[in-house]
Amino acid sequence: MPGISKSIDAFRESPTRRIDAIRERLKRERRDVIVLSAGQPSVPPPRDVRMALGEELLGDDMELFAYTPSQGRRELREAISDDLRRTGGVEVDPDDLTVTAGGQEAMFATFMTILNPGDEVILMDPTYFGYKPILEYFGARIVRVGLDMDDGFKLDVEALKEKVGPRTKAVVLVSPDNPTGSVIGVNEVKAVADLAVDRDFWIVSDEAYRMLIYEGSHAYPYTYAPDRVISINTFSKDPGMPGWRLGFVYGPRELIGRIKLAGEEMTYCPPSISQRLALLYLRSREREAHVRRVVEEYRARRDALMQAIKRFLPEAKFQVPHGSMFVFMDLGKYIDDGDSFAEHALEKHGVAVVPGSYFSDRYKQAVRASFVWEPAHRLEEGARRLGEAAASWKGNPGRRE
Amino acid sequence: MPGISKSIDAFRESPTRRIDAIRERLKRERRDVIVLSAGQPSVPPPRDVRMALGEELLGDDMELFAYTPSQGRRELREAISDDLRRTGGVEVDPDDLTVTAGGQEAMFATFMTILNPGDEVILMDPTYFGYKPILEYFGARIVRVGLDMDDGFKLDVEALKEKVGPRTKAVVLVSPDNPTGSVIGVNEVKAVADLAVDRDFWIVSDEAYRMLIYEGSHAYPYTYAPDRVISINTFSKDPGMPGWRLGFVYGPRELIGRIKLAGEEMTYCPPSISQRLALLYLRSREREAHVRRVVEEYRARRDALMQAIKRFLPEAKFQVPHGSMFVFMDLGKYIDDGDSFAEHALEKHGVAVVPGSYFSDRYKQAVRASFVWEPAHRLEEGARRLGEAAASWKGNPGRRE
Repeated sequence: MPGISKSIDAFRESPTRRIDAIRERLKRERRDVIVLSAGQPSVPPPRDVRMALGEELLGDDMELFAYTPSQGRRELREAISDDLRRTGGVEVDPDDLTVTAGGQEAMFATFMTILNPGDEVILMDPTYFGYKPILEYFGARIVRVGLDMDDGFKLDVEALKEKVGPRTKAVVLVSPDNPTGSVIGVNEVKAVADLAVDRDFWIVSDEAYRMLIYEGSHAYPYTYAPDRVISINTFSKDPGMPGWRLGFVYGPRELIGRIKLAGEEMTYCPPSISQRLALLYLRSREREAHVRRVVEEYRARRDALMQAIKRFLPEAKFQVPHGSMFVFMDLGKYIDDGDSFAEHALEKHGVAVVPGSYFSDRYKQAVRASFVWEPAHRLEEGARRLGEAAASWKGNPGRRE
Repeated sequence: MPGISKSIDAFRESPTRRIDAIRERLKRERRDVIVLSAGQPSVPPPRDVRMALGEELLGDDMELFAYTPSQGRRELREAISDDLRRTGGVEVDPDDLTVTAGGQEAMFATFMTILNPGDEVILMDPTYFGYKPILEYFGARIVRVGLDMDDGFKLDVEALKEKVGPRTKAVVLVSPDNPTGSVIGVNEVKAVADLAVDRDFWIVSDEAYRMLIYEGSHAYPYTYAPDRVISINTFSKDPGMPGWRLGFVYGPRELIGRIKLAGEEMTYCPPSISQRLALLYLRSREREAHVRRVVEEYRARRDALMQAIKRFLPEAKFQVPHGSMFVFMDLGKYIDDGDSFAEHALEKHGVAVVPGSYFSDRYKQAVRASFVWEPAHRLEEGARRLGEAAASWKGNPGRRE
């Protein structure tokens, strides 16, 4: 085989994909698995919207099948702009945003556009595992700011300030957070925005879960530092079409123009069919009611899982998530290693979670559990199985042989 | 604004996008434009297939909306493998191919996977304009092999051999070709395959138009050098869903695994809805009849355009295209510069073509015209307008003032 790229080694099998592979095998063996590992919604987009799209499929208009502008269709960008104003009070001109093939392309194109080798990027710890391989690929140095579960994973702006140096190119904020479910408060957002202006770095603000908040509200960093914020967004969580690959980025117009060109080279344009569904959804009378229903449903499931954890894993440490889809539990009282525990729990007890090490250098005895994929009674059963897995864990100090 | 990447300057507004922008303006001014610039089909996928997908949209199964494996769904990869065997006699194991978010992602992920800065990549001249910015971005040196219209743009293997050196990482073949419509013969394909094995370089084989052949047949390079060929494919031209962003790459398994990981970082997975449509299409009884109908339709349109060119642009030089969607015409007898002529033709005469300079350093007085987007009577009108534009061209030696 002729040679390959030296940089591409940064890319390894995604951690959740490894869990998925074991799940696939257990599925073939027809074993029942409680899936607490999935980072995707269980509620599809509103039926009316799907019906409308289904009808359009029958027309012979090539428009639905044709390429779109690489920035995304104008009508969709206008609808997104209106939606940001209505749901968040944020003013984003349709020309200051570009539509992407999912949040993943939004992330990749953003860092492709801003990074030079040797730049430093500050990540929280824990944080979403998707950032690390991209930053490594572009030759950035990752600097971590630790968050403490005991403080509710609150962002410590002073600790962040200490990490900012002359090579700091960007700080990544994920709120509502994956994996902790914490929501950054408006005071912290303002303080980071001031710091970004003062020290001239980008805030890459991952707002994938902005509509999934159970207590509190979302603070939009763009409001406080429009020249420094690149906001990453997705339609994967709301309205719930993760496989359809649609997201968007907004920020300073000049930068957005560059990100658009990066996306054009990567995928030419965002999927036209997905753009159409998103437009029908944002313009639908169902839009707000859908979010309300989904949030209520997920909140009830979260509460069910919290109750079940308290019952079956009474020594688990966790913060009640105020947003997103996940609870991040420290199982240090039961286990000594989250990675092998996750495999053990899946293989022996039929419950899938994601190990804490995928998100953190600090919480290696933690696991991430999603409360939105399975219905309440199966969330309870999942917690019961996790309790069983913890009890049978080889390193469990209190394990009954 | 904090700084941006130094490498990203390789990305500029795509040439066809610039033509599109003028077209958009003329559309707003409600001027009729004959579109010979579009590189996309005018026939949507079969109605039965669209109807089946529309019905699935009404189900509440999250499967249609969920993430898929980053390599694409197993059933789709099996269907693609079967289809390659049936339509081309090529044996490709479903594990030796990865599904991508369109041919563009296939191209980008391929070069991301194989290139190191300073590598040389050999492109034909003329060739598809999409390769240059990607190669420049990854720091490759582009080496060109000229093709002559007088020889029917036939690939001269001896000339290619002279350009192969110790730094040659890949040779890009596009057949059926964009922009010339030429089809590389089996002897040339075999000779390049032998050379690739002998000199150990990759053949990046762009087979986007493999089903759109009007005379002759497609030679599959993979058949002759399976360890050296990376085959780039798309569902944009067949069945005609360019905006839905779906393609695939096949080649040596180890490399495909790497390209899959690159795609996973870029877009996480190919669009699930598009995968579903492609699967329904490939498994449909309509599949072969659809291709036959489309090829007949496009052949008739091609013939109409050829006739009209002979009538309205009798001094245009061109080869009758045997495949793809385009004719590449040298208008050197009428004009001195294809770029300004294309703008002139669009602005003053309402006919859109793509300048030859986008594809070639040699044919700067040429233009590319698509014969598949407009119906026959409008192709004729388009040629008439081109003739008028040529007659009114300021640099035209025979121009009547």
